[in-house]
Amino acid sequence: MRYLVIGFVLLIFIGNTHAQNMDSIFIKKISDEILINGKAYDNLRFLCKQIGGRLSGSPQMYKAEDWGKKTLAESGADKVWLQECMVPHWVRGGKDKLWISKLVSAKNMRMPDAALSLTNLDALAIGNSEGTGEQYLTRPTIMINSFDELENKKDEVKNKIVFYNYKFNETFVNTFQSYSDAVKYRTQGASRAAKYGAAAVVVRSMSHATDNIPHTGALRYDTAYPKIPAMAVGLKDADKLAALLNNGPVTLNMQTNAKNYPDTIGHNVIGELQGSEYPNVYITVGGHLDSWDVCEGAHDDGAGIVQTIEILRTLKKLGYQPKHSIRFVLFANEENGLRGGAKYFEEAKAKGEKHLFALESDAGGFTPRGFGINADETALNKMKEWLPLLKNYGCEKIDRGSDGADIGQLKSIGAVTAGLLPDTQRYFDYHHARTDVFENVNKRELNLGAINMAALIYLVDKYGL
Amino acid sequence: MRYLVIGFVLLIFIGNTHAQNMDSIFIKKISDEILINGKAYDNLRFLCKQIGGRLSGSPQMYKAEDWGKKTLAESGADKVWLQECMVPHWVRGGKDKLWISKLVSAKNMRMPDAALSLTNLDALAIGNSEGTGEQYLTRPTIMINSFDELENKKDEVKNKIVFYNYKFNETFVNTFQSYSDAVKYRTQGASRAAKYGAAAVVVRSMSHATDNIPHTGALRYDTAYPKIPAMAVGLKDADKLAALLNNGPVTLNMQTNAKNYPDTIGHNVIGELQGSEYPNVYITVGGHLDSWDVCEGAHDDGAGIVQTIEILRTLKKLGYQPKHSIRFVLFANEENGLRGGAKYFEEAKAKGEKHLFALESDAGGFTPRGFGINADETALNKMKEWLPLLKNYGCEKIDRGSDGADIGQLKSIGAVTAGLLPDTQRYFDYHHARTDVFENVNKRELNLGAINMAALIYLVDKYGL
Repeated sequence: MRYLVIGFVLLIFIGNTHAQNMDSIFIKKISDEILINGKAYDNLRFLCKQIGGRLSGSPQMYKAEDWGKKTLAESGADKVWLQECMVPHWVRGGKDKLWISKLVSAKNMRMPDAALSLTNLDALAIGNSEGTGEQYLTRPTIMINSFDELENKKDEVKNKIVFYNYKFNETFVNTFQSYSDAVKYRTQGASRAAKYGAAAVVVRSMSHATDNIPHTGALRYDTAYPKIPAMAVGLKDADKLAALLNNGPVTLNMQTNAKNYPDTIGHNVIGELQGSEYPNVYITVGGHLDSWDVCEGAHDDGAGIVQTIEILRTLKKLGYQPKHSIRFVLFANEENGLRGGAKYFEEAKAKGEKHLFALESDAGGFTPRGFGINADETALNKMKEWLPLLKNYGCEKIDRGSDGADIGQLKSIGAVTAGLLPDTQRYFDYHHARTDVFENVNKRELNLGAINMAALIYLVDKYGL
Repeated sequence: MRYLVIGFVLLIFIGNTHAQNMDSIFIKKISDEILINGKAYDNLRFLCKQIGGRLSGSPQMYKAEDWGKKTLAESGADKVWLQECMVPHWVRGGKDKLWISKLVSAKNMRMPDAALSLTNLDALAIGNSEGTGEQYLTRPTIMINSFDELENKKDEVKNKIVFYNYKFNETFVNTFQSYSDAVKYRTQGASRAAKYGAAAVVVRSMSHATDNIPHTGALRYDTAYPKIPAMAVGLKDADKLAALLNNGPVTLNMQTNAKNYPDTIGHNVIGELQGSEYPNVYITVGGHLDSWDVCEGAHDDGAGIVQTIEILRTLKKLGYQPKHSIRFVLFANEENGLRGGAKYFEEAKAKGEKHLFALESDAGGFTPRGFGINADETALNKMKEWLPLLKNYGCEKIDRGSDGADIGQLKSIGAVTAGLLPDTQRYFDYHHARTDVFENVNKRELNLGAINMAALIYLVDKYGL
């Protein structure tokens, strides 16, 4: 009996080794194809330079949809279609302006405008905010370092501009932790200040960059309170403003033409490879096609888009015939509404579709380090066993972690969800800022992300979960 | 007996856990200190912007030595000294020029110069090469794709310019493999072509960047053959040249003022913290202070220099009292001679110094991924056990691998040697090129390298090897 067991174990071992060798060979083919013939970088150049920022409802959104549809088809999808969804339509409406007029009188009386020492700050209206319109707003300013402080000073903010100066915590090694920690000031700060009568808010940008470039992003108004204007200011200017406020009273002047228009029509752009064994069981891989208006959306999330398309192109080029149907989804409206992801989920649920796995790349086109997984213990352990196959390509970690905003809801209909985890150090240098441009993406880092994603999709398709 | 063994194992386990907790706490202190109060980035800015390229023998080399000495002292070294060594003194001597004059006649007769269609190529003289002087060199050009091809065509290269067009292999995920594979064309190409009578060589730059910027670096002349001029050309121009050569004969024109002067005096700059228990047993941590002349030497190796100084500053700031003496060494002349590393080793050997460990950072200030180690099995396994302590800071791998050119010889007197392994994807975009500037270093990536190095130094000092 003992010999029998040993013999059996040995067979399994040889079987596994053989399979792993075959997988290793195929993943090397994926890698070589992408590193030698990859189109992701050229596609990203086109998306960034020929289309540019593509916020929901903008003309560029429609251009990007057309480009996405065409590129998915050219890359070998069996079919490509647009999935309609209503998206918010926020427009910046021109140049945002924020400037200081320092109060110089002992009694806080403002000097006549012409006599003021004016200093322009580098700032952007926050997405979804209502602007001041053509008039500018001039108000004394109060610095608030936390929501706790806001509660303590709630009687002092009325009619003022609230300046939230909450800093990115530099001691988190994973910069997404710093973002999670600080972003509530951008998303909730306006309404929480409006509750106590504030006239507008200025938020320290969500970054720890060494430059002064402001970072926009979305807010959510609480409809119980007035929709007051909101801006994000660059970090050096935030420090300057804080120093001035520590020295004495400061008046800020703000002008933005930001405006919310009625919802309009947008689309998820979907390409599909039909499965040979389980055509009605779906694997989804995607990124989001929209981006902020002030940048090219190169890392956020042009990278995820071109990686998604690259996986399709590579699997087709290598003649891979998937067992499951694989959908390559360019999601609409992640930035200021998440309507694309919601629509994809709702339709999948309504149709009773079976979704095995969904993978998103929405953390930048930086060098890949692993995958964040949402799965039960069994599926997670199965995926962890694939780690040796991916280690050569930079993936050091398959573990519980962030998946992706657009695919998260698919968990509720049984999918295992996952997110590519690139190195996080540079992400918030560029995130939602005018520096998020093609030139700040490295071709090889982008390609390595696509390689690891393609390999994971291949393994899930071949072995199930 | 069985119970006794279990009890003993448990005690060890608790002991280890307690020690690991203490280490974990101290390493977190290192991390917080560097991420919050770190001086590495500001030091790098000064080194790059106020001193700049600092090739051996240049005025900037001496400025950098002065700065290094001053900065090590300010950062808390118990003593600082200069260790003299002779260094090569190569000077570029002005702008390097390389241009095409296409042969247009069917019989390969050159048209008069004035009638030629001239095209300038972006190229740099290779370090240690002899230039053409004030005269320019005009020769028919032959493309050679490998040394094997050179041997096959050895009768065709006489009096010609040999253009080595060997490409970086893009399929290696670790870009240092591509470099190792290709760099012999830069280091040996001139003499191997001179052996067969070639007049000069042009080498495709050692890079897979997407731009056209040439990368210099050193060559070694074989004294058996004439010292012919040698240049490196940008990748797009290399492709252009290759396409022209595939179409018909091409004449290249070259002019460089490169010249080798007699050796001159340079210095390793050394700071030391004296050990409390083993003052005569040394741990060395370092980088190299010299850089190529055409750039700021930000990644190569300003990063290693400021990380080295940052480790000293941090250990002092945290009041750490090392058991062993720790030397912080800014090595001279890594780029075109390795004389600093050789001198440090020779003196250590001559004095019979005991060297426990040496660590170098010379692979760029990119996000850290691990350490390459040269050690016996026992020491390596001991270091591998520290991995859980470093994982939070980006270090995923402690394994056999590259150490560093300046410290490699210390192995022969018993030291375990190690190298910081940052992510490699961007290194050869900047390496030895005019793009190796401060702006291409990310502050947090640089700091994380210093954190991991400081933590490793701390663990080696505390536990030995």
